[in-house]
Amino acid sequence: MRFHHVGIAVESIANHATLFEKALGLTMTGVPVDDTGQHVRVAFISLGNAALAELVEPLDEQSPISSLLRRGGGLYHVCYEVDDLDATIKTAQAAGAILITPARRAPAFGERRIAFVHLTDGSIVEFLEAKAI
Amino acid sequence: MRFHHVGIAVESIANHATLFEKALGLTMTGVPVDDTGQHVRVAFISLGNAALAELVEPLDEQSPISSLLRRGGGLYHVCYEVDDLDATIKTAQAAGAILITPARRAPAFGERRIAFVHLTDGSIVEFLEAKAI
Repeated sequence: MRFHHVGIAVESIANHATLFEKALGLTMTGVPVDDTGQHVRVAFISLGNAALAELVEPLDEQSPISSLLRRGGGLYHVCYEVDDLDATIKTAQAAGAILITPARRAPAFGERRIAFVHLTDGSIVEFLEAKAI
Repeated sequence: MRFHHVGIAVESIANHATLFEKALGLTMTGVPVDDTGQHVRVAFISLGNAALAELVEPLDEQSPISSLLRRGGGLYHVCYEVDDLDATIKTAQAAGAILITPARRAPAFGERRIAFVHLTDGSIVEFLEAKAI
């Protein structure tokens, strides 16, 4: 398991990309990608050291990001790249984690599989499978 | 500028270190360090890829972390390692950032200098100088 990115809930990817560039000198990699199944548009900022920030914008009011934004938005998940997604989920569940998004393919990651869990402290963790299967 | 760590406000470093280990298999590096000037105790979890999570526990009710915990705690800052702290702060301020913790030495980082800013979106960013001066 290794750190991949932090997720940031934003009203506007464009505005936040500008803020990252002006305040921190950090720029977007690639172009935004829509994930209609998740009701989100995402874009990545390169943070150096291969680390990324994922800007996540709601595509509609049904988006889980819309409710996060109503509570202020901002940093809301950490994503780890893992070798075996199913085994990782099982380990987390054995420690009390709740699976909130079962394994699914993600357009933003070249159709590699992701899953989201809630740890027992209420934090949101994403797992990203290292290889497409 | 390169990603260094995410900061997580927690009631108890011990409880969170246990959660990271059981749910994610990620372990603490070193031992907790008190920063009495900041009213916090901090400890680091290795996330692989040289990335870290900083668990930040309040030392008292005056701690800025106490007020964060009253609002739920959890992820609250991203820290970047920078070559020139003073120049980095100036660039961020020119983009509207507010300096909330001016440059100071941090016991948790071998007395290297840190600073905290609020970006215009309300997010909290820490800068950590690469070399001790």
